[in-house]
Amino acid sequence: MRVGILTGGGDCPGLNAVIRAVTKSLIHRCGAEVVGFVDGFEGLIRNDTRPLAWRDASGLLTLGGTVLGTSNKANPFQYWREDGADVSDRAASVYHEHGLDALVVIGGDGTMSIAHRMQQKGLNLVGVPKTIDNDLMGTDRTFGFDTASMIAAEAMDRLHTTAASHHRVMICETMGRYAGWIALYAGVASGADVILLPEFPYELEEVIRICQARERGGQRFTIIAIAEGAHPEGGVQSVAKTIPGSPDPVRLGGACQVLGAGLEAQIESEVRTTILGHVQRGGSPTPFDRVLSTRFGTYAAELVADGASGVMVARRDGRMTAVPFAEVADKTKLVGADDPLVRAALDVGTSFGTASLTPDLSRMA
Amino acid sequence: MRVGILTGGGDCPGLNAVIRAVTKSLIHRCGAEVVGFVDGFEGLIRNDTRPLAWRDASGLLTLGGTVLGTSNKANPFQYWREDGADVSDRAASVYHEHGLDALVVIGGDGTMSIAHRMQQKGLNLVGVPKTIDNDLMGTDRTFGFDTASMIAAEAMDRLHTTAASHHRVMICETMGRYAGWIALYAGVASGADVILLPEFPYELEEVIRICQARERGGQRFTIIAIAEGAHPEGGVQSVAKTIPGSPDPVRLGGACQVLGAGLEAQIESEVRTTILGHVQRGGSPTPFDRVLSTRFGTYAAELVADGASGVMVARRDGRMTAVPFAEVADKTKLVGADDPLVRAALDVGTSFGTASLTPDLSRMA
Amino acid sequence: MRVGILTGGGDCPGLNAVIRAVTKSLIHRCGAEVVGFVDGFEGLIRNDTRPLAWRDASGLLTLGGTVLGTSNKANPFQYWREDGADVSDRAASVYHEHGLDALVVIGGDGTMSIAHRMQQKGLNLVGVPKTIDNDLMGTDRTFGFDTASMIAAEAMDRLHTTAASHHRVMICETMGRYAGWIALYAGVASGADVILLPEFPYELEEVIRICQARERGGQRFTIIAIAEGAHPEGGVQSVAKTIPGSPDPVRLGGACQVLGAGLEAQIESEVRTTILGHVQRGGSPTPFDRVLSTRFGTYAAELVADGASGVMVARRDGRMTAVPFAEVADKTKLVGADDPLVRAALDVGTSFGTASLTPDLSRMA
Amino acid sequence: MRVGILTGGGDCPGLNAVIRAVTKSLIHRCGAEVVGFVDGFEGLIRNDTRPLAWRDASGLLTLGGTVLGTSNKANPFQYWREDGADVSDRAASVYHEHGLDALVVIGGDGTMSIAHRMQQKGLNLVGVPKTIDNDLMGTDRTFGFDTASMIAAEAMDRLHTTAASHHRVMICETMGRYAGWIALYAGVASGADVILLPEFPYELEEVIRICQARERGGQRFTIIAIAEGAHPEGGVQSVAKTIPGSPDPVRLGGACQVLGAGLEAQIESEVRTTILGHVQRGGSPTPFDRVLSTRFGTYAAELVADGASGVMVARRDGRMTAVPFAEVADKTKLVGADDPLVRAALDVGTSFGTASLTPDLSRMA
Repeated sequence: MRVGILTGGGDCPGLNAVIRAVTKSLIHRCGAEVVGFVDGFEGLIRNDTRPLAWRDASGLLTLGGTVLGTSNKANPFQYWREDGADVSDRAASVYHEHGLDALVVIGGDGTMSIAHRMQQKGLNLVGVPKTIDNDLMGTDRTFGFDTASMIAAEAMDRLHTTAASHHRVMICETMGRYAGWIALYAGVASGADVILLPEFPYELEEVIRICQARERGGQRFTIIAIAEGAHPEGGVQSVAKTIPGSPDPVRLGGACQVLGAGLEAQIESEVRTTILGHVQRGGSPTPFDRVLSTRFGTYAAELVADGASGVMVARRDGRMTAVPFAEVADKTKLVGADDPLVRAALDVGTSFGTASLTPDLSRMA
Repeated sequence: MRVGILTGGGDCPGLNAVIRAVTKSLIHRCGAEVVGFVDGFEGLIRNDTRPLAWRDASGLLTLGGTVLGTSNKANPFQYWREDGADVSDRAASVYHEHGLDALVVIGGDGTMSIAHRMQQKGLNLVGVPKTIDNDLMGTDRTFGFDTASMIAAEAMDRLHTTAASHHRVMICETMGRYAGWIALYAGVASGADVILLPEFPYELEEVIRICQARERGGQRFTIIAIAEGAHPEGGVQSVAKTIPGSPDPVRLGGACQVLGAGLEAQIESEVRTTILGHVQRGGSPTPFDRVLSTRFGTYAAELVADGASGVMVARRDGRMTAVPFAEVADKTKLVGADDPLVRAALDVGTSFGTASLTPDLSRMA
Repeated sequence: MRVGILTGGGDCPGLNAVIRAVTKSLIHRCGAEVVGFVDGFEGLIRNDTRPLAWRDASGLLTLGGTVLGTSNKANPFQYWREDGADVSDRAASVYHEHGLDALVVIGGDGTMSIAHRMQQKGLNLVGVPKTIDNDLMGTDRTFGFDTASMIAAEAMDRLHTTAASHHRVMICETMGRYAGWIALYAGVASGADVILLPEFPYELEEVIRICQARERGGQRFTIIAIAEGAHPEGGVQSVAKTIPGSPDPVRLGGACQVLGAGLEAQIESEVRTTILGHVQRGGSPTPFDRVLSTRFGTYAAELVADGASGVMVARRDGRMTAVPFAEVADKTKLVGADDPLVRAALDVGTSFGTASLTPDLSRMA
Repeated sequence: MRVGILTGGGDCPGLNAVIRAVTKSLIHRCGAEVVGFVDGFEGLIRNDTRPLAWRDASGLLTLGGTVLGTSNKANPFQYWREDGADVSDRAASVYHEHGLDALVVIGGDGTMSIAHRMQQKGLNLVGVPKTIDNDLMGTDRTFGFDTASMIAAEAMDRLHTTAASHHRVMICETMGRYAGWIALYAGVASGADVILLPEFPYELEEVIRICQARERGGQRFTIIAIAEGAHPEGGVQSVAKTIPGSPDPVRLGGACQVLGAGLEAQIESEVRTTILGHVQRGGSPTPFDRVLSTRFGTYAAELVADGASGVMVARRDGRMTAVPFAEVADKTKLVGADDPLVRAALDVGTSFGTASLTPDLSRMA
């Protein structure tokens, strides 16, 4: 049995742990030969490979990044190096040239979408869900999310102490362009006072009201977790208008700076911003993510060994299962207002920046 | 509405986070007055309390330990300070004296057993499951377990590098007297070569065989995760017999030392042992445990507010639910040989120290 | 004996450890009464105090921030709340009102400058040097610097792995407006390929040359540590000119964004930026900083007990000593091109972004 | 120029960082060829080598352990594999066979002693001091010590919180057989109440007096840091005698268990023990240790390039310098009762377990 493996899309803690689990498991189960493609689908298109023996998979469990490299540009159906040409036939012939029985692709919704189309071309693919954002349909959890949330929560823990020394509003921007899971999770974990998500456009006046209520109540600080995709109700220009001199909205910058500028103009406390950026994607995965990666990887190997394809492994209600590509390709799982974690956050006094998603401030004293 | 709260049994990361969530949530939901009992049931018996206002609950989320104190000796039905007398009526009258509508008890199987009996005396109790060992029936997960596993996994990560420098066998003893979840989880997370659990008595010869196969195969080290309750097939004396001079089995010490002595006598590599002990119970909980504690606490408050009692909150298949005390009191959830994580570990080459739970070593090269 | 204590200027890990050490040491040495002033000199001006008994000082060692609060605006000689009026007499009378024998001030060069002038008004002051930037004259080291450097180095470690997965240039901005010690130290600690400091204006062309040499040499990434005060030779406009469309230099933003924009226009790899901000100031101090804080604090207490004043405690060549305020007030210790750490960094292949401070790239292959 | 390098003695965080710095620096300075000997002097005796090019040295900075392997048994003057024979001539001829101009040896006092004798045989050696114990003569600091202290301090931080929940005495055993620097440093950093070192035999009665005074004073816990080489005044039998049933002293075990048994017999609080063991030697070095390793390594390369030999690099008063082997071989730097850190610890209320090294308990309330 010969099996290929590649990692697609953005980097994510746990990729190496999955590569290790798939490789070791396939060798252990059926003595398979495993071959890695370098830089995601780029390696499939350009036939750039490296063999993966048992020994090559050793030591990968705790390692950040991916030893195979990845790319978030390489799409066989629209290849960036050739003006968006369809080179999927070329990719398919590389697959056959290597005599592969299956290809395991580790990636996000974009990767699953490509996998879906390659499957339709007669190849056998099995997907492993990957996104630090945890916004993939069909699975409760993706690896990398626990690590990203932990990094964001630790940063907010640090901001907490320094905010308390200074009468300050601290804004911390996490990743999450379309879905706010990291900001939600890290915000609840670090006791953020306000959590702003792409899913709930925030009302600047409401955020100001909370900061001021806290100032009046004698609390020395307000901690705000904001996802990079969070935006004000009414758009950036609605914030710009409230700032003396009404600056060009473009000059304000990203989510964190827009909110910061809007607050600074109207509250007494100093406002400070932190943008964590790619720090959230790097380094060794947490034990939780290593275990999840190992389970995803061994389950993918089991599916391959059993001849299954056209599916992505998933964790549902705590159990491993397989989901057809069609159910997950190009779909995003968003935070809902009735999500249990949103309700729990409201219960302990956290606001989501809108009047309807703010707890009763009068009881919090 | 007046609600009491106490923490029973051994210390566990996340206790303060639960106290905070229960308190804030009850105040926010129904303006309840919350009173904490000091040192677990000891405080209920001796009427030792402290009020818990919103402000008292602030800053607790990330704090290790329990601000209320705990005790693993105080049982109202068998009170240690009075020669094991039944003082449960006294405890019940303290409950009524405070005019409580309910009492939230955070604890393990022993605490749930006491809660069950107090409930039968006409008090209203709601339980929150707590054990770093994750061995409580009725719930998929308990808070504290993620933190304990992370601490154990980090220690094993460190042992990994130093073992590789020296041709060594490194044994790391984790908590887990009856159930081996921490050793299993941390062992998988850190890529232990052998994991020994109370549930599967190990065969010393098999462990030796693995260490020697690795020596021969050119690997410089073997990492063994062992739960404090793990023991050899045939008992300690069976190991003592294999050691030159056959020492008194009692002199060998705990799980870690017994195995260490048994290995040292028969393999070439040096053997080193680490006993993590209570380090696994202390310090700030991981973000995962803080979120879980917050969800448990707010859900317990919801149950109390809704008038429910006689139940423990639980997480099943990712959702919060309530389980009758009778289902969980004095029961232990053990690791089974068919547990998915055990199977995943075997797949990536980890042995559980018995011939039947060891992967095919011939393929691991 | 009665002694006051306050913390001035920006927040810094280890402030609480110093407060603890000064307080406990004064009580232990001479049974002193210690009183804390709230929010730095603000508390001295407004007579806002809290008593500090032995017990109040317990538990502070590992705590981030300052329990006394701080302010970087409150200067008795130019009081912000009263239009910059000189209220130093009022501050002095509060000192006398409390019957103080001495006042311990923990702060940076600005605080030492105020202390110097208060001393000249006949008060007895002893200073403890504090700045995460380590740029205070007269002392080899300040507490907080080890913690800040560790946080920055850990962030760069994470960026390292994710950069390697993607063919990327990663820029990480650290604190350091005038002096680049954090960027230098964290950059060396994490193996940054380029370190850019305020002291050495960088040549954009040189940085590009290095990135391109690494791309050509097959290295997948370049890590750049940049202090917030680092700037290009020729100013921001010189960078703006090299960018297609020549954007308004103001629109580019801070140090990190200016460099990022300059690189993005001319190299093939993707460029990503991280701005750590106040995360570097918060959280529990490292053991190194806790020990240093304890030594600074106990030595300050010793000086006070011995009747010394008008001096700042300092560490020189590993030993505690006292330095007159005049020698340190309003002075900054900068990184020199002949600093041993700069030379060591060049030796292991790190460039400082100028032709004269770049190693011989031809040997690095 | 051809230069050899080896790592001797026990493992230590920062070894790889030194290997990297020496290698890169020698290549960068003089285009040297560098060759590594495997497993310390074992590799020199058996001519087991691997080349070290620039690229081989990349990625080593943050890595725990040593890629060259080490041995604490291989002494050319008394070779364990050949019944203690003197094989130093064979080792010397391997040196000449490789045409080496110098050999850099990274190790502790034992390694420096061997280096001293090899130097006398006409070889050129330069030493780099290594010991997590920081007990090497001639240098203020050794790399690895900061990492070991941080790991020990973090463990004690965790024990602190869990001790406070339970009315407990927590004993944490650190490394340090002859010198107590790790226990001292980590103890001060984590606010241990009692610190027990090999240098000051402790009085069991005094330790009991402190625990009881704390119990009476309402403090819920006592934290004791103990070095593995610490022992009671009067020997283990003097402790055994105080325990009911007077157990066989040998059965009590190591430093931690002896003290634990002695306390348990006489105080009310529960006693719990943790033995950190080799966890202190493993894993990624702290930024402090990485910087120190880099400075040691580049300075060693500078010495080699300048033709110096017969010396060990050292840090004295914050500066790099060279010390003749004779001054450091087989010598140990002990903690003195007048060490500034001991005095600082006493000042903040820490006892060293003897009447003369215990602060005035009456003031600590």
